[in-house]
Parts: sequence; C-alpha cells; structure tokens
Amino acid sequence: MGRTSDAREKILTAAQSLIELRGYSALGVAEICKAAGVPKGSFYYFFASKEALALAVIDEHWAAQERDWIRVLRGDPEPLLRLRQLFEETENIQRSGQQSCGTVSGCMFGNLTLELSNQTEAIRARLQEVFDAQVTMVESVVAEARGRGEITAADDREAARSVVAQLEGQVLFAKLYNSPRRLDALWANCLALLGARVPQDAAEAPASSAKDAAEGVPAGA
Amino acid sequence: MGRTSDAREKILTAAQSLIELRGYSALGVAEICKAAGVPKGSFYYFFASKEALALAVIDEHWAAQERDWIRVLRGDPEPLLRLRQLFEETENIQRSGQQSCGTVSGCMFGNLTLELSNQTEAIRARLQEVFDAQVTMVESVVAEARGRGEITAADDREAARSVVAQLEGQVLFAKLYNSPRRLDALWANCLALLGARVPQDAAEAPASSAKDAAEGVPAGA
Repeated sequence: MGRTSDAREKILTAAQSLIELRGYSALGVAEICKAAGVPKGSFYYFFASKEALALAVIDEHWAAQERDWIRVLRGDPEPLLRLRQLFEETENIQRSGQQSCGTVSGCMFGNLTLELSNQTEAIRARLQEVFDAQVTMVESVVAEARGRGEITAADDREAARSVVAQLEGQVLFAKLYNSPRRLDALWANCLALLGARVPQDAAEAPASSAKDAAEGVPAGA
Repeated sequence: MGRTSDAREKILTAAQSLIELRGYSALGVAEICKAAGVPKGSFYYFFASKEALALAVIDEHWAAQERDWIRVLRGDPEPLLRLRQLFEETENIQRSGQQSCGTVSGCMFGNLTLELSNQTEAIRARLQEVFDAQVTMVESVVAEARGRGEITAADDREAARSVVAQLEGQVLFAKLYNSPRRLDALWANCLALLGARVPQDAAEAPASSAKDAAEGVPAGA
C-alpha cells in the first residue's frame, strides 16, 4: 500500500495549496489530480467526493496547526506572553506564505468559513469544531492569567472568542492589503480585549511589538 | 432605454443574491442571467466580464451600506453611542438575512475579500477602498470621542482599524455558527479596544446590550 498512501498524501498536499490560492469552489477534481500527479481514479479511491477531500484537508491542516498552538499555548512563559508568541508565529507564517507565493493567503479556516459555511453543513460543523478548539485553548490561557490577577474581562470564554475574532479580522486585513504587518496590532488588541495590564516580563522578551506593548497602547499602533 | 436599464438592475440584483448565497467563483454567467430573467446577450451588453459584474455588485452594495453608515455615524447621539447603533443595525441586518434565506450570509465585502482578494487585483483594489472608507468613518467618530476625553487608545486610525477588524471577525463567527447573537459582543469589545468608559447616556438608550455595557464588561459577555 506504499504507493497508494503516497497518492493520498499527494492529493491532500496539492488540494491544500490550491485551496489556499484560489478557494474551494473554483477547483475541479481533474485539476487537483493533475497538480498532484495522480490519475483521477486514485482520487475516488481515497475520497468519495470533493467535499470529502475538503474535510480531509481541514483535518490535516488543523492537526498541524493544533500541534503548534499546543506547543505555544502550553509553553513556559507566563500566560499572556504565550498569546503574544501565538500572534508573532501567526504573522511569521503569513509572511513566509507571502514570500513563497507572492500574496498573503490568510487563514484557511476563515477563508473556508466565509466561502462555504452556509453551503455545506458537514464543512460548517467541522469548521465549528476547529474554532471551538481554538477558543478553548485561548480560554485556558485566559483563565490562567485571571488566576494571576492579570485580567479584568468578565468572562473567560467570551474574552477568548473576542481574541480569536480579532485574530481572524486582522488576518482578513493582512490578506486584503497583502501585508503581514497588519498583525502587529494583535498583541495590543488582545491586552485591551482582556482588560489586561502589560506583563512585567514583556519588555525583556525579544518581540517586535515589545516596545508598543510596553507603552500599554490599548488598540493597534 | 427603459427596458435596457431594467435588465442591468435585474442582473445586479440577481448577482448580489447569488454571491451572498454561494460566493463568486461558483457562479456562471448563464446562471446569473437565468435568475435575473434576462437573455445572455444583455449581460455582455452591460458587463465586459464576470469580474466587471463583481465590481458593479461591490459598488452597488457599498453605495447602499455607505448611506446607512453615514446616517448612523454622523447622527445625533454622542459619538460612542453611534458606534453602538452601527453594531445593532449590523446585527439586525444579519438577522433579517437569516430569516429570509435560512442562514446568516455575513458581510459581502469580507466574503469577497477572503475568496478573491489574492486572485484579482481589480477586486482587491475595490475592496481596499471600501474598507478604507469604513475605517475612515469610524476614525472620525473615534476622533470626536477623543476630543471629549472619552477614549485612551493611542492612535485614532489604528483604533478604528481594530474596531472594523473585530466587526469582521465577529461577523465571520455569526456566519459560521449561523447566529446573529454573536454580534452582541461588539459593543463591549469596541469600548475595550478604544480604552473607553461606558458613555453616561448608555443606560438610557434602548439597546439590547445596554445592560452589559452599563456593567463595563471589557470583552464580550
């Protein structure tokens, strides 16, 4: 089965690149197979439909991103600094994408949400699971910060939702203006949304936004 | 030219509905003409291409939304309350859309940004103009609030960008969860992002979120 599972990987990789570049609706199975270098018969051996492929692409992309989020959000620094690291890594990923394909491709989950969530219930449900998981991870960092008396937001989960919403909104702008620097605002925005003070260690951390953060700027800047 | 300009309007109206339901890439000119009840020849009399139609749909939709934003953001109440009214009207529009077609369709400009902004430069440029105009309108309300000593955010334009980004992010969630109530969080989020106190008149205004706002909740709730 070595060659067969190789074909599945090739299809998934090609589909992910094409979806990031051009969305889902504009793609055909024939084009995906051509980009993957596999015969069309292989496609239907592995995937019942284009929708089944989209679900597999979401799962694969989330499996990788979830590992990154767990590494960062359960890491060593104090809780709010982990959120800052998450924003910096997100900006770096968008910058790398821009360098390799010329444009900021944005968040695949956000892209597919706006393109597809009101068209296929299976994809909507899967994307809800992804965003629920993101919010839950941020929520537990928020709860930890609350335990240290660092935030004043009323409700951990609502605050976490607002942080993830701000992330999606700024990634949308990063894509629209083809500028990863739009994400520089995320750290100050997050502190404002959480009603947080700037962590004492922030000035020591090697962050591009450390200066603004140290000045306690509520929004953007 | 009576009939002819009627055909153009029919095409625009049909295209706007179809784009809101299913995005741009999935649509064909034949389908748009069928929904509009006009012959395909009429389409190419008015529009050089599907992209030209998309630009006209954006212009038409923005012309209407800009009138609404101007009415609200240059209205009578004190500046921060105008922003609250903008969020409430946005939620009402999303709720009406949900009632008429079963699902929250989200923000057409956000939808098209994530679907198309890195595929066609003409559409990217037009969508940038729309969001620049939105940010400028919010910025002038923020400046007015600053003049009254009501906010502490460092920079009016950056703060306005963050408010519009939060709006787009929460509208994304409203679409994903098919729930206009996701937009309830916008007012408290906006106050947090601006570093604003709750306006004194807030409790008197007939707003669904007045209670939360009066409690000065930093994020969501």
